Amino acid sequence: MPAYDPDNIFAKLLRGEIPSARVYEDDDTLAFMDIMPRADGHLLVIPKSPCRNLLDASPAQMAAVMQTVQKLSHAVIRAFGADGVTVQQFNEAAGGQEVFHLHMHVLPRKEGDRLRPPGTMGDQALIQAQAEQIRAALAAG
Amino acid sequence: MPAYDPDNIFAKLLRGEIPSARVYEDDDTLAFMDIMPRADGHLLVIPKSPCRNLLDASPAQMAAVMQTVQKLSHAVIRAFGADGVTVQQFNEAAGGQEVFHLHMHVLPRKEGDRLRPPGTMGDQALIQAQAEQIRAALAAG
Repeated sequence: MPAYDPDNIFAKLLRGEIPSARVYEDDDTLAFMDIMPRADGHLLVIPKSPCRNLLDASPAQMAAVMQTVQKLSHAVIRAFGADGVTVQQFNEAAGGQEVFHLHMHVLPRKEGDRLRPPGTMGDQALIQAQAEQIRAALAAG
Repeated sequence: MPAYDPDNIFAKLLRGEIPSARVYEDDDTLAFMDIMPRADGHLLVIPKSPCRNLLDASPAQMAAVMQTVQKLSHAVIRAFGADGVTVQQFNEAAGGQEVFHLHMHVLPRKEGDRLRPPGTMGDQALIQAQAEQIRAALAAG
């Protein structure tokens, strides 16, 4: 497996060098909106410390990321009245990975919906509004 | 969220009431082959203790499951020469969940492959042979 690239876009995002619609952070993890959402409210959870994907993640990184995935799954259910949540995580290009910093996709789902195809840029104003709904759901507990 | 059903099929599988092609277990987790594989070597990782999905999993259950997912991801790369791994996890029916005991899908991937559609029963002799390849890869370390 190639080494971690400290100039991948999520590393830049963590350093504040590129913008993101952040919805949650704690000491170990950050959650922000996917700019190419496959479902309304599609967000990503990443560790703040470097790792390429699950293949080189530490137990502590995995544990922290999963606790934030759980927290945000409950938040999107409250924020959007979601009926379920799909979680996806891709390792290496063949596995579907495009950015080589570990990230978990959290996809709010409604009964009977279909995920949109990957790779289509979302409406950024709508994404910002959905981020605010998630932040409000987290604040309301 | 409905309560955990102790008669779901993975609970029965854990109790040995229905068969499975087991590839790995430790005190907290079990890994076994998916009988409807969407990729060659498709396996599932579950906690041995009851929880419905990520929404009610404990931090310890999530941590244990993810460590086994990581271990088996490395094993399928060695066993099949996989180029990557896709991880999926479904919460509630709208999220894609069909068996209501937490499980993580581990899907070995090759460059350029496509996942097969869900819901098609696999060749059980082939699945048993793939299980043996994974057990051998784990034994070889």
